[in-house]
Amino acid sequence: MNKARDFDQSVVDELRALLGDRVSTSAAVREHHGKDESYFPYALPDAVVFAHTAEEVRDMVNICRRHAVPMIAYGVGTSLEGHILAVRGGVCIDLSQMNKVLAVHQEDLDAVVEAGVTRKQLNEYIKHTGLFFPVDPGADATLGGMAATRASGTNAVRYGTMRENVISLKVVLADGRIIQTSRRSKKSAAGYDLTRLFVGSEGTLGIITEVTVRLYPVQEAMSAAVCAFNDVDGCTRTVIETIQAGVPIARSEIVCEKTIDAINRYRKTSYRVAPTLFFEFHGTRASVIEQAETVQAIAKENGGMDFQWATRTEDRTALWDARHNAYFACLQLRPGSRAVSTDVCVPLSRLAECVHETMEDVKDYIAPVPLLGHVGDGNFHLMFLVDPDEPEETELAKKFNKRLVARALAMEGTCTGEHGIGLGKQESMRSELGDDVIGLMRDIKRLFDPENLMNPGKVVPLQ
Amino acid sequence: MNKARDFDQSVVDELRALLGDRVSTSAAVREHHGKDESYFPYALPDAVVFAHTAEEVRDMVNICRRHAVPMIAYGVGTSLEGHILAVRGGVCIDLSQMNKVLAVHQEDLDAVVEAGVTRKQLNEYIKHTGLFFPVDPGADATLGGMAATRASGTNAVRYGTMRENVISLKVVLADGRIIQTSRRSKKSAAGYDLTRLFVGSEGTLGIITEVTVRLYPVQEAMSAAVCAFNDVDGCTRTVIETIQAGVPIARSEIVCEKTIDAINRYRKTSYRVAPTLFFEFHGTRASVIEQAETVQAIAKENGGMDFQWATRTEDRTALWDARHNAYFACLQLRPGSRAVSTDVCVPLSRLAECVHETMEDVKDYIAPVPLLGHVGDGNFHLMFLVDPDEPEETELAKKFNKRLVARALAMEGTCTGEHGIGLGKQESMRSELGDDVIGLMRDIKRLFDPENLMNPGKVVPLQ
Repeated sequence: MNKARDFDQSVVDELRALLGDRVSTSAAVREHHGKDESYFPYALPDAVVFAHTAEEVRDMVNICRRHAVPMIAYGVGTSLEGHILAVRGGVCIDLSQMNKVLAVHQEDLDAVVEAGVTRKQLNEYIKHTGLFFPVDPGADATLGGMAATRASGTNAVRYGTMRENVISLKVVLADGRIIQTSRRSKKSAAGYDLTRLFVGSEGTLGIITEVTVRLYPVQEAMSAAVCAFNDVDGCTRTVIETIQAGVPIARSEIVCEKTIDAINRYRKTSYRVAPTLFFEFHGTRASVIEQAETVQAIAKENGGMDFQWATRTEDRTALWDARHNAYFACLQLRPGSRAVSTDVCVPLSRLAECVHETMEDVKDYIAPVPLLGHVGDGNFHLMFLVDPDEPEETELAKKFNKRLVARALAMEGTCTGEHGIGLGKQESMRSELGDDVIGLMRDIKRLFDPENLMNPGKVVPLQ
Repeated sequence: MNKARDFDQSVVDELRALLGDRVSTSAAVREHHGKDESYFPYALPDAVVFAHTAEEVRDMVNICRRHAVPMIAYGVGTSLEGHILAVRGGVCIDLSQMNKVLAVHQEDLDAVVEAGVTRKQLNEYIKHTGLFFPVDPGADATLGGMAATRASGTNAVRYGTMRENVISLKVVLADGRIIQTSRRSKKSAAGYDLTRLFVGSEGTLGIITEVTVRLYPVQEAMSAAVCAFNDVDGCTRTVIETIQAGVPIARSEIVCEKTIDAINRYRKTSYRVAPTLFFEFHGTRASVIEQAETVQAIAKENGGMDFQWATRTEDRTALWDARHNAYFACLQLRPGSRAVSTDVCVPLSRLAECVHETMEDVKDYIAPVPLLGHVGDGNFHLMFLVDPDEPEETELAKKFNKRLVARALAMEGTCTGEHGIGLGKQESMRSELGDDVIGLMRDIKRLFDPENLMNPGKVVPLQ
């Protein structure tokens, strides 16, 4: 309930004049917008506004700027590093009601959507076209939020992240100008890549109100498989060899035995409790069979046990539901807990070693530490379950994470493959990229937001 | 021979103290560095230096900055929009002797190279690994230059452009600091995307001295094909339908009958003189056959005549040599001419219409106007052959190009798919992106290069 005392009530009056009842200062609404899926404590905005158009966002930005009030763009609040916490109070600009699909260009394989459209909503909307949007971070996040955090997830190994799949953005700048970063052609060499500069900027350089994304043809055949292994090393080796063989695998996900156990309990499934890979293959019928046979042979050589197939849509969906619910399933391993979720990503050649050393290290943690991850990209997550009422548990988890980040950096990796910086990874990013690069980022922040009002305190906080 | 009079000779003295005989002020060397492949007239640097290390580049940058002398990074000079012309004199920093492959990480599918390594050199170097680097702009450009201009070319439809294939860059900034933009992991969500900001910056924000690029496994089978059509529309429709069918085609290039005729004359080949598609398919043996059969069927429905195969390496090479020499072959249609090369890129749905209207329009030009292009990306080139001694021909060609750009922009396309802005597309970029976006780019330029010494006058010139 921070900062409410200092908040200039005339801001609310001006916002009400603009938006009527789409302005809220109620405790419930502010609380809902003052917390993401991370372990960070609540940090409430002073007011929450619900935008319907880019022009409204511009007007809100102008009001906030005139009153020197922070503004935080908000989608559905599924970020994991405290991205949307109002650590300096201010106005939360909720974009979830900007949820219209504006255009689907079937021949061009793209769609233009308002920032509040979620990935599942888009996929439902375009189901009849034979196209789909692949980026899948697990949560049903908004496409604006996914662009702002450079999200990726299970399909990235084949289809790329938001970095590769955003064609253009409409952005409201801190000074109230509305820009379109690029045209709709598939490629362009026209000037500095502003699109990519906003992708991953976490609301600190401007507010994304519209996203043009790439779509892909649904392949003739899509087939999934699970395979259990004796050890985690067998899983990582299998995926590395698969990728080196040039198999265009669509998904390759690792879960450890603790995660499988959690999934079995949570979803009443009966997967073998062992380190496990979840695969997906996309292509023509013949190509999918060929891919799967290649991978099955590689898995077998690396101690893979039973290759279970899921070719029917409902079986595939059940399988991926299980994987997608792993996060929530694991939270239930310790009811009432929250997770400090790690997110390192290393070059593939170092993955087995990084996972191995890490699993050894976390044996000493106070609770089981489930592992899950996008192993084809070298990106994996550990979940340190913490009791939110025992701050020293969070501190302990952060200590383990710090060691993990140091290990990944020593292997030429990154502290964050997909969760982003937010509040939680600022020091790690400095270790990763060095003072000069952080200094450049700060200069860019100052250039785009000289008054430090756009999601202040995130990514590269200005003093 | 511009500016030589005003040039501060003490700069040369300081550079000589640093580099010995790797500094040249000879007319021949300056002329060689004062011209690219474009129609722009010579604009010579006052001196040319040959760098061997990033630290030397830093020292050169510091010398130039102290004397307020422009500096222009140079690879092999194959750019097409006057990118490397020393329009304000200064020092050309030739990076072509920084041509060591520093590391090939086979398991990680990446390579770290000095900026002067060319794409063919890299592919030759890694031939034994079973990996290859796909980005192929035709010319044997340096990877530093390709990164700096966001190059793409024939393989981009499947493997992406330099935007997607650069993992990290080492860059010397205008103030002499050397930064590494990113770690070597395949993806990262750590902060603002500085890598992508330098990709396409054309030497105006810093000098790229090292590039980490993605590599791909050479597929089991690679097979090429040519197919002639009754008309250009048949070509474009074939490619659009191929992509919509989800065929993972590796290359799909269009050449018109005038280009084919030029190729036949130049290479003594005997392709049917008709609008033609060049294809390439990568995959397993079975998958390549399947892809090719699908495409052949689509081509047939769109008036494709004879599908000629090339599966043996030497036949494939001959076929792509023919395509790659199209530019030089077409120049011979009018001996002694240079080309004003156009580069629009439009959404695929508008491609047939854009090509059709354009071919109608250029019928009035004074010479045949060959067409060639990366039709799977919606990107095509026309070559307006001009007599370099008749400036009004260049002006006429530019007039046609201006109409073409306006047509492409009206179709939500870009003025440049891959050649970049350089000197030639600055006004087109303003029409494309608007004053606010150009203003932002200018602000970024000022932030990175406050004294306007890094390739001044290009992309977004400061006054």
